[in-house]
Amino acid sequence: MSRKFFQSMTSRRGFLAAGVGSAIATGGAAQGLAGELQKAAADPKNLPPNVPDWSKYLGESVAAAPYGKPSKFEAHVIRRDVEWLTASRESSVNFTPLHELDGIITPNGLCFERHHAGAPDVNPVEHRLMINGLVDKPLIFTMDDLKRFPRYNRIYFLECAANSGMEWRGAQLNGCQFTHGMVHNVMYTGVLLKDVLNEAGLKPKAKWLMLEGGDSSGMNRSLPLEKALKDVMLAFKMNGEALRREQGYPLRAVIPGWEGNLWVKWLRRIEVGDEPWHAREETSKYTDLLADGRSRRFTYFMDAKSVVTSPSPQSPLQYKGRNVISGLAWSGRGTITRVDVSLDGGRNWREARIDGPVLEASLTRFYVDFDWTGQDLLIQSRAHDSTGYVQPTKSELRAVRGVNSIYHNNGIQTWHVQPNGEVENVEIA
Amino acid sequence: MSRKFFQSMTSRRGFLAAGVGSAIATGGAAQGLAGELQKAAADPKNLPPNVPDWSKYLGESVAAAPYGKPSKFEAHVIRRDVEWLTASRESSVNFTPLHELDGIITPNGLCFERHHAGAPDVNPVEHRLMINGLVDKPLIFTMDDLKRFPRYNRIYFLECAANSGMEWRGAQLNGCQFTHGMVHNVMYTGVLLKDVLNEAGLKPKAKWLMLEGGDSSGMNRSLPLEKALKDVMLAFKMNGEALRREQGYPLRAVIPGWEGNLWVKWLRRIEVGDEPWHAREETSKYTDLLADGRSRRFTYFMDAKSVVTSPSPQSPLQYKGRNVISGLAWSGRGTITRVDVSLDGGRNWREARIDGPVLEASLTRFYVDFDWTGQDLLIQSRAHDSTGYVQPTKSELRAVRGVNSIYHNNGIQTWHVQPNGEVENVEIA
Repeated sequence: MSRKFFQSMTSRRGFLAAGVGSAIATGGAAQGLAGELQKAAADPKNLPPNVPDWSKYLGESVAAAPYGKPSKFEAHVIRRDVEWLTASRESSVNFTPLHELDGIITPNGLCFERHHAGAPDVNPVEHRLMINGLVDKPLIFTMDDLKRFPRYNRIYFLECAANSGMEWRGAQLNGCQFTHGMVHNVMYTGVLLKDVLNEAGLKPKAKWLMLEGGDSSGMNRSLPLEKALKDVMLAFKMNGEALRREQGYPLRAVIPGWEGNLWVKWLRRIEVGDEPWHAREETSKYTDLLADGRSRRFTYFMDAKSVVTSPSPQSPLQYKGRNVISGLAWSGRGTITRVDVSLDGGRNWREARIDGPVLEASLTRFYVDFDWTGQDLLIQSRAHDSTGYVQPTKSELRAVRGVNSIYHNNGIQTWHVQPNGEVENVEIA
Repeated sequence: MSRKFFQSMTSRRGFLAAGVGSAIATGGAAQGLAGELQKAAADPKNLPPNVPDWSKYLGESVAAAPYGKPSKFEAHVIRRDVEWLTASRESSVNFTPLHELDGIITPNGLCFERHHAGAPDVNPVEHRLMINGLVDKPLIFTMDDLKRFPRYNRIYFLECAANSGMEWRGAQLNGCQFTHGMVHNVMYTGVLLKDVLNEAGLKPKAKWLMLEGGDSSGMNRSLPLEKALKDVMLAFKMNGEALRREQGYPLRAVIPGWEGNLWVKWLRRIEVGDEPWHAREETSKYTDLLADGRSRRFTYFMDAKSVVTSPSPQSPLQYKGRNVISGLAWSGRGTITRVDVSLDGGRNWREARIDGPVLEASLTRFYVDFDWTGQDLLIQSRAHDSTGYVQPTKSELRAVRGVNSIYHNNGIQTWHVQPNGEVENVEIA
C-alpha cells in the first residue's frame, strides 16, 4: 500500500463535503459517542493496514447460542421503566427504545410491556379459551384446537391509550422512549375471531363481547361485536415465533388500530352479551376525563400520530452537515398517506420520504435527509392518514379535551436541538 | 355456573365436527404433546371454574427483563447444528427451526448462522469500511459516517447456497429445520451501496467489486458492479434493532435474491476492479460441480423454492380431521405468484392460499386447510414465481446437474405422513 494512498484515506473526513454537502464536525461540540468516534478515527491503529483482534482470532462457534442475543455492544438498547410512575412494578409499564430502532418491525425482546398483575408463566398445554354467553354452544378450546382454524399474518401497531399521557400537561419526559415508547409493531400470526365465534354460534341478541385475561388481575374489556367480526385476531405468534410471556403467551387478542388495553393477553374467556360490561378498565380507567367533569367513553381508535425518533433527547445530533431525521407515523383508522416535517417549530414544513411497507394500522417509517449548520432546531412531524385526518397540535387537542386525561394524546411533538447537538423535549405555543 | 352449562362445555371435543368437519382424535394414534393435551383436556382441574396458579399470583414485574426472552415453555425452539457435518464448529452452520415458526418474519434469535471462522465481537466504534481500487478517491467510513446516507428498509430472504445440499443424493436429514433451515427473512435497514460508491467515484473501467469480511477468515467474494448498483444494501439493522453479532454486526452486505455467501458479514472492505477475483469461496467452494467434472460458476440467483414446514418430521400430525398445512415459498428472481400443494406425491395438486405480504425476494407464507382421515400422505409443495419459473422436481434437477454438488438444490420436497401422524423425509421416483 503506497504512502500516498494511505494519506488519502486518512484525510477522508471531508468525504461527505463534496458529494453530499456536509462535513463531520471536529472539536468543541463533540462529546460522548461522537467524541469517541473522532478519537478512534484519528488513531492510526484503527486504519488499514492495521488489523483489529477480531480479525486475528476465531469467533464464537455455531453451537454457542441456540437462541441468539444482541451484541454486547448493544447492552444499552433495552426497555426501561420509570420507578416513580406506578405504585407497583407488577401493575406498571416499560417503554420501547424507539430512539435506537429503525424500520417498522419491533424486535420481540424490545416490545414495551404493560401489565396489571405482572407477566404470568402460562403453560400452553393447560391453557384454555372459553366462549360463553349468548352463543348456541358454549365451547372450550385448547391451544391446539385454535391452531386448526385458518391462519392469517398481519403487521399491526399496538399502542397503549396512555402513550404520551404524561405530556398532556406540558413537556415532561426527556426521550421518545418515554414520551412515545408505549407502541410496538410486529407481525402476528393467528386465527380470526369471527371463525372461532362461528363455531360457537351467535344468538340473535349478541352485540358485545367481553374479553378476559388469564393473569391474576383478570383484566377484562368490552368489545363491540361489529369490530370482532371485522378484523380481530386471536394471535399465538409474533414475528414468527410464539408470543412472548409479557405479550400474552400463549394467546392474545389483536384489535387492529384500537387502544392496546383491549388487546387482552393470556386470553382465557370471551363472553358474548347484548351490552357493554362497564368493567373497571373501561370506567375508572381508559376513559378520557374532560374539563367539565364528563368522560369520553369507548375511545377505541388510536388516531394518526407521529414522532421523530432520531434526533431526540436520547439520540443527539453528533455532526454538522448531512444528517438523517428518522421517524414513525401510524393511524388506527387506515394507512399513513403523508408525513410533514418542520425544523422551525411548525412555521415551514417539508414532505418526508416514506420508506418501507405502508400498511393498514401499522407503524410507517419516514426520513428527511437534511444539512445542519449548527443552529437551534425545533423539529416536529405531522402525520396524514387515508381518511384525510391530519395530526393536530397539542394546543388544539387541549382546547377540546382539557388536561385531566392521560389518554389519547396524539398531538405534535417538538424536539429542541441545541447548537451543541443535545436535544430536549419542549412545548411551543 | 349451572351444572348443565358445565357439562355442555366438557363435551366440547366434538366442536370442530359440526362446523369445520373434523374431530379431535382420541386414543391410539395420539402420543407426545397430543396425548398430553388429551389428558389435560380430560382432567377436571383444567376446566372452568377451576383456576390455575398463574391466575392466582402476581407475575413478573416490568423491570424483570429489560431485553425479553421467549417463554420457558418454548425452550425447544432453537437453532440446532449437526455435529458431524463439519470439522470445526467455528467453520460450520446451524439451522433455523422453520417447523416451529409461522408468518414470514424470522426472529433475530433464530436466524441460522454460517461462519468461516466463528462469529467475532466487532466493536462498532472501532470498525471501519474501506473502499479502494478503481475509484477516484479511496475512502474509509466509520459506522456513523454510513448512517448519514439515505436509509432504506426492505424485507429479504437470505438463503445459503448449500441449503438442502445434503438432499442431492437422496433423502438424508429428517426435519425441515435441517433440510431447509439455512434460510431466514428479516427487515433490513441500511443504505444503498450505489450511494456509497458514488461518494468514492467509480473509474470508467470499474466492472466488479470484491467484498471482504472483517472476521479472521477474511471471507471475500466477487460481485458484479451491475448488481451492486441495482439493489445491494449495506445494512446495520435487522428487524428494527442492530444486526446480531452472528449476522455481521455492525455491518453486512445485503444482496437481494442472491446466495447467502455473497452477503459478506462484518464487512470491512470493498475493492473495485475490472474482473472477478476468483477467491477461494468462489472457486473451490460455492461453485456447482457437474457430472462431467466441469463447474457452474457465478450461480448467484436462488431460484424459486418452497417447503411445507408443518406437518414435517419435527411437527407431526396430531389429530384426524381438520388440519392446517403451513409452508414457505421464495424466489430470488422476483415474487411468488402461486404455490401448489399435493397430498399424494405429485399426482394431484391444489392451489395453496398465500397469506401475508408478497414481496420481492422475500419468504412468502402459504396455507392449505384440509381434512385428514388418517391415510398415508405424500405432501409436496411447488412454487411459481413472477418470471414464470416453476419449481422443479429433484429428479429433473439431477438430470441436468448430477449429484456432485451440494449447492442450489431447489427441488420439490416430499414428506411422508404415516397413519400414526409421524412424518418422514422421503424421495419418490
